[in-house]
Amino acid sequence: MNEQRRAAPLPDLSLADYGAGLRNRTFSAEATVHRLLERIRDDAALDAYTYVDADGALASARAADENLLARNDTGPLLGVPIALKDLYASTGLPMTAGSRVDIADRIPVEGGLVRALKRAGVVILGKTRTTEFAFGTFNPSHPTPRNPCDRAVHRMPGGSSSGSAVAMAAGLCAIAFGTDTGGSVRQPAALCGIAGFKATAGRLSMDGVFPLSPTFDSPGWFAPRIADIAAVWQVLTGEQAVHARPLDTLVVGRPSAHFFDGLDHDVASTVDIAQRRLAAAGVRIVPVTLPPLGDLDMAFGAFLSAELVATLGRERVIAALPQMDPVVATRIAPGLELAADAYLTLRARFVELARDAHDAISSVDVLLTPTCPRTALPVAGHEDPTVAAAWSRETLRFTRPGNLFGFCGVSLPIGHLTGTLPVGLQLLARGGEDAALIAAAGRIESQLARP
Amino acid sequence: MNEQRRAAPLPDLSLADYGAGLRNRTFSAEATVHRLLERIRDDAALDAYTYVDADGALASARAADENLLARNDTGPLLGVPIALKDLYASTGLPMTAGSRVDIADRIPVEGGLVRALKRAGVVILGKTRTTEFAFGTFNPSHPTPRNPCDRAVHRMPGGSSSGSAVAMAAGLCAIAFGTDTGGSVRQPAALCGIAGFKATAGRLSMDGVFPLSPTFDSPGWFAPRIADIAAVWQVLTGEQAVHARPLDTLVVGRPSAHFFDGLDHDVASTVDIAQRRLAAAGVRIVPVTLPPLGDLDMAFGAFLSAELVATLGRERVIAALPQMDPVVATRIAPGLELAADAYLTLRARFVELARDAHDAISSVDVLLTPTCPRTALPVAGHEDPTVAAAWSRETLRFTRPGNLFGFCGVSLPIGHLTGTLPVGLQLLARGGEDAALIAAAGRIESQLARP
Repeated sequence: MNEQRRAAPLPDLSLADYGAGLRNRTFSAEATVHRLLERIRDDAALDAYTYVDADGALASARAADENLLARNDTGPLLGVPIALKDLYASTGLPMTAGSRVDIADRIPVEGGLVRALKRAGVVILGKTRTTEFAFGTFNPSHPTPRNPCDRAVHRMPGGSSSGSAVAMAAGLCAIAFGTDTGGSVRQPAALCGIAGFKATAGRLSMDGVFPLSPTFDSPGWFAPRIADIAAVWQVLTGEQAVHARPLDTLVVGRPSAHFFDGLDHDVASTVDIAQRRLAAAGVRIVPVTLPPLGDLDMAFGAFLSAELVATLGRERVIAALPQMDPVVATRIAPGLELAADAYLTLRARFVELARDAHDAISSVDVLLTPTCPRTALPVAGHEDPTVAAAWSRETLRFTRPGNLFGFCGVSLPIGHLTGTLPVGLQLLARGGEDAALIAAAGRIESQLARP
Repeated sequence: MNEQRRAAPLPDLSLADYGAGLRNRTFSAEATVHRLLERIRDDAALDAYTYVDADGALASARAADENLLARNDTGPLLGVPIALKDLYASTGLPMTAGSRVDIADRIPVEGGLVRALKRAGVVILGKTRTTEFAFGTFNPSHPTPRNPCDRAVHRMPGGSSSGSAVAMAAGLCAIAFGTDTGGSVRQPAALCGIAGFKATAGRLSMDGVFPLSPTFDSPGWFAPRIADIAAVWQVLTGEQAVHARPLDTLVVGRPSAHFFDGLDHDVASTVDIAQRRLAAAGVRIVPVTLPPLGDLDMAFGAFLSAELVATLGRERVIAALPQMDPVVATRIAPGLELAADAYLTLRARFVELARDAHDAISSVDVLLTPTCPRTALPVAGHEDPTVAAAWSRETLRFTRPGNLFGFCGVSLPIGHLTGTLPVGLQLLARGGEDAALIAAAGRIESQLARP
């Protein structure tokens, strides 16, 4: 490329419009990535990225531009600048899984998801901050990215995919990848005011992603809009995720217990307006009774810990406890105590619970709940590990069940309906119905758009 | 049916010949089952069956005869009298899983395998003896079926599928079903002088089968000849298992370590003759180096125990230890101690081991080893639990690796080559290559048949 071309105003442009502009040579991937790298530098105080691969990103961008010139069009993600949570191995990029503990011998090689993205021609800008081992949403002892919804006060961005959510919300990439084991994509999406999608666990390969829980981990991604989430889904699976049923044929389940308890005033009123707008558009909202989590909600933590201990190795965990964030060290300890039979019994009960949950929603298209009962609180005041852990538990209260039930999920930003801090509307669907969920979320997003 | 027809001389007839006779009305299923029921009564001292369903079996046999008259031909298992190890749930038949412990709340409902057999028209004669929870090959405190290879001395039949092996070897059914977690089909097949096949774990449904280890359990069956094993495989999977490569194109791996160590003289000389006959027929026998089991061989027991504790429930296990057979009580105890992370670490190492083992045999069609290093010892002298446990470990020494490696396996009777007590030739193949293994075993069986 010899000529100088403009940068696309990403992420304001949809991926479709960005792709059209690249292809009609209105702007170049190289200039776009250049501008994003500048913006990342200018907004370094947000602390979203742990590593920025400026040279690699620019080379990828030039390759994308050259490939388009050469008519090697690899599709809708060609030249799209993305960010990867620092749990995704990407050849040549450093990886810590958010920890100071030496886990060099446990770092996986680049896996199927990143390879598929590379084949599709993405530009990897760098790695984003995760809480330690993605275990919890906030580490008092590690840097926490700043939620860009408030430039004056350092507010919780949510987590564990905190860096990816902040990078996306601040416009420092076009798509940001995270992982979701108990809500780590949906909850920060809600708190930062962007869209977030978590795939059905087991639907996409988690090879090459540092595991918290091989049973419950699922990949997910943040985008400014559902159409972009759908574009990524289609690249990774070949499934179209855009043909939703018209809103007036959509049956939405509203859980009659748990998911509307103890809401912030702002969350309650915003979700209420969203529901009324959907009902006015003909969406049938029906009550749904989900199975109670009971003791499984608490046992979930011990289950994850045991899986994490198995990944890290018991000796390393015991030796490294003093190095770990105090919240993580406290949460991982039960994993050292859980017996194998208790683990297996829990696993069997999780399978049963998921079966019951799927039965319970067999007659609706999606479930609708608030993503998070609270808006983003200031980081100050959460330094105490007990307070920090309580914040994690409380703010994942509505997302965790989606993982336990084996669902896929989306969080849609709806704070604009009342002008509050960001608020998320969670949409959940049966495991495996990811494409239908994304399509329905697209229809609902349009209906709830700023008028 | 009004006329009186003869009984087929089962199991001397192959299933194919039996089926032909039924269809040309040389004999009836009813008369055949009648005669088998009489034989079961006459040979009650063998103690193979724990429950004989005479009325049900005769009704099924009449249904088979009537269905043939009505031209409702359900295929090669129509009217075939079978025995089920008392781990297989079969509606209406009692089930104890070989234990005196109350496990009524854990008895599964009839599963896919038995349902498929019933759709194919089998006649279920009854349930056969298993060692307690199929955990080990001999229970000093429970009745042990008599190995029919020696009518004078009560010899070990092997196990855990002891009753099915004895019922088959004594001609008290046409096919007998067992399960194999560490050798529980192949080892008793070898000791009783019949053919036994264990499917790749995970290839056939284990629903409705009381679990020892959901990870390693696999179904299997005993027959007088490989063609009958192939007929069952075809009914259950739709796969033909009869078109083997000619013997002079077959590449057989002979493990260079472990599998030929410490053999009884009779086993060594019999297996040696078998190898020489195969080599003379043009079979290429090449050395193969399998990965060493190392500490995983010992850890396997604790792993199984933990899975069994999870099935039974920790409280029940602790309360029931005094009721259990002393060998089982001793073996299950480590399952109470295993930590969840150790379980998960083992599981990951088993997966790696199986991958290495599959790599190691990528250039051969099947592996060949003795099934068992010993012939059947007298039961007397094994009353002491330590002696009994040592017998189990020793006689499963060559079968257990097949489970750990994720292979499928066959034991072929070859004792006739030297006229000793029964000796088994084990053939193992890569997971999923069950049909090819059965087909190769059929060719090898013909070559080793009495001249």
